Amino acid sequence: MSAADKLLALRGLFSSPAVTALTGGTPLSAYLLPSTDAHQSEYLADYDFRVKFLSNFSGSNAYVVVTEKNALLWTDGRYFVQAAKQLDDKLWTLMKQAQPDSITVEDYLISNLAAGNAVGFDPFLLTYDAGSKLLKKLNSVGLKPVAINENLVDKFWTDRPTLSNKKVDVLNTNEHGQSTCDKLTKLREKLKKQKCDAIVLGALDDIVWMLNIRGFDIPYNPLVYSYMLITLDEAHLFIDDSRLDDASRAHLSNIHIHNYTDAQPFISKWRESNKTARVFVPTSTNYAIGSIFGENSIQDDSPVMKAVKNGIEIQNMRTSSIRDSAALVQFFYWLEQEIKAGKTYNEFELADKIDGLRAKMEKFVDLSFTTISAVGDHSALPHYHPDGDEGNRTLHANQVFLLDSGAHYRDGTTDVTRTIWTGDVSTAPADFIRNNTLVLKGHIHLAQTLFPSGINGVRLDTLSRHALWQQGLDFGHGTGHGVGMYLNVHEGPIGIGFRTMSRHGDLKSGNVITIEPGYYLPQHYGVRIENCYELVSAEVNSGSKDFLRFEPLSWVPIQTAIIDKSLLNEDQVKWLNSYHDKVLELTGGFLKSNGMTTELEWLQKQCEHI
Amino acid sequence: MSAADKLLALRGLFSSPAVTALTGGTPLSAYLLPSTDAHQSEYLADYDFRVKFLSNFSGSNAYVVVTEKNALLWTDGRYFVQAAKQLDDKLWTLMKQAQPDSITVEDYLISNLAAGNAVGFDPFLLTYDAGSKLLKKLNSVGLKPVAINENLVDKFWTDRPTLSNKKVDVLNTNEHGQSTCDKLTKLREKLKKQKCDAIVLGALDDIVWMLNIRGFDIPYNPLVYSYMLITLDEAHLFIDDSRLDDASRAHLSNIHIHNYTDAQPFISKWRESNKTARVFVPTSTNYAIGSIFGENSIQDDSPVMKAVKNGIEIQNMRTSSIRDSAALVQFFYWLEQEIKAGKTYNEFELADKIDGLRAKMEKFVDLSFTTISAVGDHSALPHYHPDGDEGNRTLHANQVFLLDSGAHYRDGTTDVTRTIWTGDVSTAPADFIRNNTLVLKGHIHLAQTLFPSGINGVRLDTLSRHALWQQGLDFGHGTGHGVGMYLNVHEGPIGIGFRTMSRHGDLKSGNVITIEPGYYLPQHYGVRIENCYELVSAEVNSGSKDFLRFEPLSWVPIQTAIIDKSLLNEDQVKWLNSYHDKVLELTGGFLKSNGMTTELEWLQKQCEHI
Repeated sequence: MSAADKLLALRGLFSSPAVTALTGGTPLSAYLLPSTDAHQSEYLADYDFRVKFLSNFSGSNAYVVVTEKNALLWTDGRYFVQAAKQLDDKLWTLMKQAQPDSITVEDYLISNLAAGNAVGFDPFLLTYDAGSKLLKKLNSVGLKPVAINENLVDKFWTDRPTLSNKKVDVLNTNEHGQSTCDKLTKLREKLKKQKCDAIVLGALDDIVWMLNIRGFDIPYNPLVYSYMLITLDEAHLFIDDSRLDDASRAHLSNIHIHNYTDAQPFISKWRESNKTARVFVPTSTNYAIGSIFGENSIQDDSPVMKAVKNGIEIQNMRTSSIRDSAALVQFFYWLEQEIKAGKTYNEFELADKIDGLRAKMEKFVDLSFTTISAVGDHSALPHYHPDGDEGNRTLHANQVFLLDSGAHYRDGTTDVTRTIWTGDVSTAPADFIRNNTLVLKGHIHLAQTLFPSGINGVRLDTLSRHALWQQGLDFGHGTGHGVGMYLNVHEGPIGIGFRTMSRHGDLKSGNVITIEPGYYLPQHYGVRIENCYELVSAEVNSGSKDFLRFEPLSWVPIQTAIIDKSLLNEDQVKWLNSYHDKVLELTGGFLKSNGMTTELEWLQKQCEHI
Repeated sequence: MSAADKLLALRGLFSSPAVTALTGGTPLSAYLLPSTDAHQSEYLADYDFRVKFLSNFSGSNAYVVVTEKNALLWTDGRYFVQAAKQLDDKLWTLMKQAQPDSITVEDYLISNLAAGNAVGFDPFLLTYDAGSKLLKKLNSVGLKPVAINENLVDKFWTDRPTLSNKKVDVLNTNEHGQSTCDKLTKLREKLKKQKCDAIVLGALDDIVWMLNIRGFDIPYNPLVYSYMLITLDEAHLFIDDSRLDDASRAHLSNIHIHNYTDAQPFISKWRESNKTARVFVPTSTNYAIGSIFGENSIQDDSPVMKAVKNGIEIQNMRTSSIRDSAALVQFFYWLEQEIKAGKTYNEFELADKIDGLRAKMEKFVDLSFTTISAVGDHSALPHYHPDGDEGNRTLHANQVFLLDSGAHYRDGTTDVTRTIWTGDVSTAPADFIRNNTLVLKGHIHLAQTLFPSGINGVRLDTLSRHALWQQGLDFGHGTGHGVGMYLNVHEGPIGIGFRTMSRHGDLKSGNVITIEPGYYLPQHYGVRIENCYELVSAEVNSGSKDFLRFEPLSWVPIQTAIIDKSLLNEDQVKWLNSYHDKVLELTGGFLKSNGMTTELEWLQKQCEHI
C-alpha cells in the first residue's frame, strides 16, 4: 500500500457511516493520531505503531494530523533531520515543536478549520487531561471534537503485526527490595491524605513496579499491557490471561485478576456503584478511562514512587552498571584492534557486536532500546539507529563513531553514550575536537555541580549547555532523563530538560538520572557523552544537609585523545582524571577478576590522566 | 481594633444573612483573601490592602485563609522572616510557599474541611483561571465554594483609606514611540489570527501602555483603575470620570469612555448581544469579569506586547538610567563623607536622602517602590523597608548597608541595589566578604552569559546562584524581573525565576530585565547586587544571529573593597573592570557636565580596576 493510498484510505473513512453516526452526519475535517498506545507508552509495540505505518516516520515522538487536503507530523528537535528524510514531502508537512515560531496542533486546527468542522480522535490515545483541554479549546472556537473508539487507521492496516504472548516474570526480594503489600500500603496512605477512595493506574511501568513483575509486550520495555483499580481494600488487575503462569498467579494471589479487555466496562460499572467515591486519576490515564470519572476526581501526576530507588535497587544498579561498563570496554578494545588491522564493519555489525557482548553478561534480559550505532554524519542525527540501507555504512579508520546503547539486567537498566574518533586522531577536524570538548565540558560542569535537594530538573539543564552557548552553539534535546530499575530507560517524573517543569519532578537522593549533552553539525558529525548517575547527599562547606551531588553509575572511559585540554578548567580536568581512576578501579577490577587481561591493559592506557 | 477582634468580626460574618443567602443556609467554614485588587496589581493602594489591615503583614505576596478556628497566611521565601515578625503567632500561622514540604491553599482546605463545608471568596480578587481551578478542585471533593461579591473584610474596616483622585498624564510621541492607534491595530491583528472578535483588558499596565497614559491611583505604579473592552471596530474604556481632564479627553477621543463601575454590567450586556463572539480573556482577568465569558473564550497570557521596548523607549531608558545612576553616586559619595565625619543617620533619613537626590533629577515622577534602606541585620530581610521603630536603626562606621531603590522618570523606570561596608573594610567579617563575592560572582556569571533568543527566563536563573550552591548556600527569591518603561517596576510576562515557567516568558531583544542575586544570613547580614539590563543581539563565534546578551542600563559602582578577587575567575574580573570603565564614562560624564567635581573624583577611585 503506497503512502498516498494510505492517506486516501484514511480520508475515505472521514465520511464512513461509523463516523457520521457519531458526528450527526458531518464528515470529519481532520483526524488526530498521536504516536502512542492506550497506556501512553514511549516505545511502542509494532502492533501500535500506526504513525510509522501511515507516515513512514519512525521517531519516538510524533503527533499526526490528517485533514482533507493536508497531512502533517509534529515532532521535536531530536528528529527534524530524520523526519525530513522519512516523510514523503509531496504528501507530508513536518511541523517543528518547541521552536520560537512553532504552532501547536490545536492552534493549527483553529487557524485552518471553520466553525462546525468535525475533528476525530481516538480516546485511548490521548490522556484525560490532554483530551479535556483539546475538547475545551476546540469547542470554544466552534469546532466539533469527536471521540471515535475504534481507531480509523486499524481499519485499513491489513498487515498489522501481532502482539507477543510471553509470560510475565516475578522479581524476588533481593531484586525489588520492597514487597507489593508494602507498596500498596504506602500508596493507600497517600490516597487517604488526599481524601481519595481509589486510584486507577494505566501507566504500565507504575503497574509492574507496584506488582514486582516484569513483562514482554513492548520491545525494550519490560512491561505488560494492563490496568489497575486500587481501592482502600482491594486491588484489581486487568491483564491478558495468557501472560500469567502458576508462579505469577501465586505471586499475585492477593490481587483480583480480570481480563485486559474488561478494564473499561468493569471500571465503569464500579463507578456506577461508587458514585461519590473520590478517585485519583493520574495525568497519564487515557481519555477513555479518565472520562469515566470526569470532574469528580483528583487529577495529578502519578503518586507511585518508583523514582526514588530503595537501598537494594540502588545497590543492584551499581553492580549491573559495572558489568555493563565492562561490555562497552570489551567492545571499544575490540574495535580499536579491528580498525588497526584494517577491517571495516557496517553499523548493523557494530551494533550486533556490542549487543552480543552485553547478552553474555550475567542477569542480562534485553536491550533497553535499539542500539544507536552511528558512523560519520549519521551521528549528526541524535536518535538515529541503523535501519535499511543506511545501516550498511561502514566504519573504518579516521571517522566519527557514536554509540548510544544500554540494556536491562534483572538487577538494573543502563544507558551510556560515547563518541570516538577511529584511527589517527591527528586526522580529526579541529572543530570536531573543539565541539567534543565543549560537550564534555558541559557534561562535567553539571556532573560536578552541588545543588539543593528538591529542585526541579529544569533548573539544571542550562549547566550542560552553557559552554556551547558561549560559542553560539546549542543542542535540541534535553540534558537527561530518569532511569528505571530493570524498567523503562526513560522514567518519569524526573528529568533534566527545558521544555516543561514537571510538577512532581523534584530531584531527591536515590534518583537515577542521565547526563547527556550533545552537539550536532548536520551532514558532518554529532557528539554526545552520556552517563547514568545516582543522586546522593553532598557534603558542603555551609554544613547544610540539604544538598545533592551526582555520583556516576556508568564507568566507561571517555576518549582523551579528542579533548582540547586548554578548554577545560582545572576542576574539570581533575574530575575527568579521578573519573578515569575509578573506571580503572571498578570496571578494571571486573575485567581482572574475569581474566580479561588484554582488555585491562588497553583500559589502563585509556584511563591515563590528561 | 485588635488583631483578635478583627478575626472575631470576620468569623462573625461567616453566618451573616448576606452569606447564608448565597450558601443556602450553610455558614462559611473558611474565607479566602489573596492580597491583591480587582486588577491583580502587585502593589496595592492602601484602599485595597485588606491583608495588612487584617493580619499586620505588609509583604507584597500573601494569601490568607481564615477558618472557624485558624488564621493562616501563605507567602514566599522573600518574606519568611518578615512575616514571622509581623504576624501575631498566637492568632496566625505562617504557611511557607515553594518549600519541599509546602502544601497549597487548596490542599490545606481539602485536608482540613469536611464535605459540604462552604468556602467563601471574593470573585474580584481571583483570576478567572485560578477561580475556575479552585472551584473545580473544591467541588471535586464535595466542598462548596461561594463567590461573595462584597468583600467581607470591608464590612468592618471602618477606617478604610480613600483613593487618590489625581488626573491621568498623557505621554507624547517622543516618550512612548508608538501611537495607541498603531498599538490597537497590532493587537487586532493578533486577535484575528486567533479568530477572536474581542478582548477584555483588566491588567492596569496593559491598559495604560495601550492608551499611552499614566495614572496615580496606586503608590509607586503609574496606573489608573480601569478596564477595557476592545472589539475589532471599537475600544471601550471604563474609568472614573474624575481622573480625566480636557487634555486626556482629547487624547482619548477615539475611545468610548464609560464609568469604572459600569464595567461589569456593560460587558455582561455586550455579551448578551454578542453571544457567539469569541473573546480573548487574558489569564490575569478577574473571576467576576472572566466568568461573563466562561468556557466560550480564549484564555491565555495577555497579548499586549509591552515587554519588547521600541527604539524610542529603550533610548529613553538608557538616558534616564544614567541620571538615576548619578543620583546613587551622589548618595554614596555623601554617605562616605558623613560616616568619615562620624555622623550617623537612621534608615528613614538615609532613604529620604536618596529619594531627595532622585527627586531633583530631570523628568522625575515618583519612586518605583518604597526605598529599601537596611542597616546591619535588617539587610538579611530581602524585602525589608524601614517602618515604625525598626527604621530608627542608625548607620555608622563598620556596618553593612543595603540600598535597593528606584524611580519613575517620564523616560524610564529604574531599580538598582548595592550592598556596602561602611568605614573600615578591615573590620568586615571574612564570611561577609566571601559571600558578597559569591553573590557578585553569580551576578557577573549571568551578566556575561550568551544565550539563545527566545528561551524562557527560568533557564537562566541557576547561573546566578551556582557559585553559592557550591558552598551549600542559596537565596529564596528569583534572580530577576522585567521592568516597564515609566511603568511597573515588576513587569511580566518575562522574568528570571525558578518557581514557574511562564508560557509567554520567552526572552527577546528589546526586553529590559534585572539581575539581582542575593544571600541572606538571618540575624546577621544580607547581600544583594542588582542592575537593570537590556537584552541585545550578541555576536557569537558560530556566526548565529539567534543569540542574546545582557547590556547594562544601570551604571553604579560596585564596592571593590569588599571583593575577594581570588574567588573570581579571569573573565569575571575583566567584566567588573570594564563595567567600571563604562560607569566612569557614562555616569562620570553626567557628573562632569553637571559640575559635580568632587563626586566625579570619588567615582574615579570607586572605578579603579581590581
